[in-house]
Amino acid sequence: MSAKLFFTPGPSQMYFTVDSHIKEALRSDIPSISHRSKAFTNLFESCTDTLRSLLGLSEGFHIFFTGSATEIWERISQNLIEKESYHFVNGSFSKRFHQIATEYGINALKADPGFGKPFGDELIQDSSELISITYNETSAGFQFDQPYLEKLRNDHPDKLIAADVVSIAPSVSIPFDHIDTAYFSVQKSFGLPAGLGVWIVNNRAIEKAHKLAEKGRQIGSYHSIPSLYTAALKNQTPETPNVLGIYLLQKVAQDMLTKGKEMMHRDTAYKAALLYQLFDSNQFLSPFIETKANRSKTVCVADVDQGNAWLLNSLEKKGLIVGKGYGDKKESQIRIANFPTHSNEQIEMLVDQINNLSPN
Amino acid sequence: MSAKLFFTPGPSQMYFTVDSHIKEALRSDIPSISHRSKAFTNLFESCTDTLRSLLGLSEGFHIFFTGSATEIWERISQNLIEKESYHFVNGSFSKRFHQIATEYGINALKADPGFGKPFGDELIQDSSELISITYNETSAGFQFDQPYLEKLRNDHPDKLIAADVVSIAPSVSIPFDHIDTAYFSVQKSFGLPAGLGVWIVNNRAIEKAHKLAEKGRQIGSYHSIPSLYTAALKNQTPETPNVLGIYLLQKVAQDMLTKGKEMMHRDTAYKAALLYQLFDSNQFLSPFIETKANRSKTVCVADVDQGNAWLLNSLEKKGLIVGKGYGDKKESQIRIANFPTHSNEQIEMLVDQINNLSPN
Repeated sequence: MSAKLFFTPGPSQMYFTVDSHIKEALRSDIPSISHRSKAFTNLFESCTDTLRSLLGLSEGFHIFFTGSATEIWERISQNLIEKESYHFVNGSFSKRFHQIATEYGINALKADPGFGKPFGDELIQDSSELISITYNETSAGFQFDQPYLEKLRNDHPDKLIAADVVSIAPSVSIPFDHIDTAYFSVQKSFGLPAGLGVWIVNNRAIEKAHKLAEKGRQIGSYHSIPSLYTAALKNQTPETPNVLGIYLLQKVAQDMLTKGKEMMHRDTAYKAALLYQLFDSNQFLSPFIETKANRSKTVCVADVDQGNAWLLNSLEKKGLIVGKGYGDKKESQIRIANFPTHSNEQIEMLVDQINNLSPN
Repeated sequence: MSAKLFFTPGPSQMYFTVDSHIKEALRSDIPSISHRSKAFTNLFESCTDTLRSLLGLSEGFHIFFTGSATEIWERISQNLIEKESYHFVNGSFSKRFHQIATEYGINALKADPGFGKPFGDELIQDSSELISITYNETSAGFQFDQPYLEKLRNDHPDKLIAADVVSIAPSVSIPFDHIDTAYFSVQKSFGLPAGLGVWIVNNRAIEKAHKLAEKGRQIGSYHSIPSLYTAALKNQTPETPNVLGIYLLQKVAQDMLTKGKEMMHRDTAYKAALLYQLFDSNQFLSPFIETKANRSKTVCVADVDQGNAWLLNSLEKKGLIVGKGYGDKKESQIRIANFPTHSNEQIEMLVDQINNLSPN
């Protein structure tokens, strides 16, 4: 391990047990096992069971593996939307899903209050089949509020709700019972090497995909929901998957469970409070997201006085790697990841270091 | 490393330097680097340059990364075929591509002489836009013959030729100048952990995808050829890729170049000769592929007297893991991988061990 510490919002610092799990994987030939062997089906079952416990998923949910969360935007567009979807867009990642749905010929409608801005009382037509929310907009540090989601669920019981939980699962408790499909990639809060997406779908979503297929809609091939589901019932994947990635995900999810998920959620809240206190009190920083309820617990974004270069460079000299702003905000903002691998002490230390710095 | 030695046709034995490269990757924070950083664009460039040298690709080829080779079947169906394709099918993997093209609404025609059987003088209509060949059919151990490919190229200069080189690149020299697009996954001949596909396309293929997009054809989204190409010109990928996988591919490809690719090709031929000599001389074995020119150099398949269980079990007790037959042949055949990580001595030892065994 190097002397560097990554507070970037993904890829980020590896979860602190990853190193030893990779070495154990090599010792026990994990990368050489067949994806059709008993060893693999045991691994698949153990990984999905552990994720169920860690995320608090009820019986009716199924877990599939893909190459990335980006892929899942495409698979949702192919499998769960026939004609029209509705997207809550206030950052680069929610915008990207809206764009992918459009590329697949879907009439993708949207609420678009601006980068990092809160949503109002949006009118969603009966014709929209799926509502897309981004539970944590990694580009802007905006966290969707739970009461808003609950109201959406109550107002639109017949629509599918898709939640991007890319940079927030499993750091906070997510109300999956209000969601029909959710997805994340492992290089964010899980602290794992990139190259694996996790797709959670309930039975309603599976039925919808089957209905679209029956109607003759092109729903894709090896990674269509029916194909993924048929394989998952046998604890398998349609193609040779990232076996090492699935192994590491199982190990790290188990480590998090062993440590205690409630403690992980509490620590996340504590560290986020420290970071927003820093943004409020430090004369060169100010929190970007105005409404406190929407300040992300896991990707904390601040505007930096006189641009971010002085701060990023000074921190990098100390081995502390903090994220730049996204897109237009590349030079004016910082994004600090607050993931489970970042200990309370590390965040306290980072806050102290930042408080010791100034632009001149 | 365990005491086991995997001669399975993929996932297989890790290339013998993988262990140390993974440890070095962890020490130098490869899994934590941003996929938009200079460190990553350097890695992308170095990986694609090394692959170009190792595979002998000329200037007009571009290299993209996907989640698997299975994904590439889908991307070819979306990007390179408008209405009709022609598939040379004589095993489970060539059949799967034919099926995926059909699932994408393509009129996918085929030559289908039977599992592991050679192709004859097939009539390919002018209307077929793309010809699919499987340079090495991993399920049956059938290697496409180069003169046949050359004739295809000469007879159909205006069609695209797509070659599945999944389990054979970079073990033998492949005539890429007769091919417009080729693809492989890294868990076969490269001896790497699964979870990365490599897609090689020439300028004609890129033009075709652009033409289809202009016509309004749905060519996908983040992994369409225009999207992959635009990113690759900046030495990037559209999504967060399997960065560790790309790092390991670069390292192992460089190791193979350093050792010498001609020697690797010669060793592959020598070890294949040993294995087919075993199949010809051992009273309990017989080579499955009849025509000698079509016997795969990298996945050597034999019928086993009295079923394969006695042989697989005896070898497994010695830590030697050999592949079962595929599909219907699961219990009657063995498949022995002959990849660059399998040394001459290891194959000689395996041959000796098999010669010492008998069913009773």
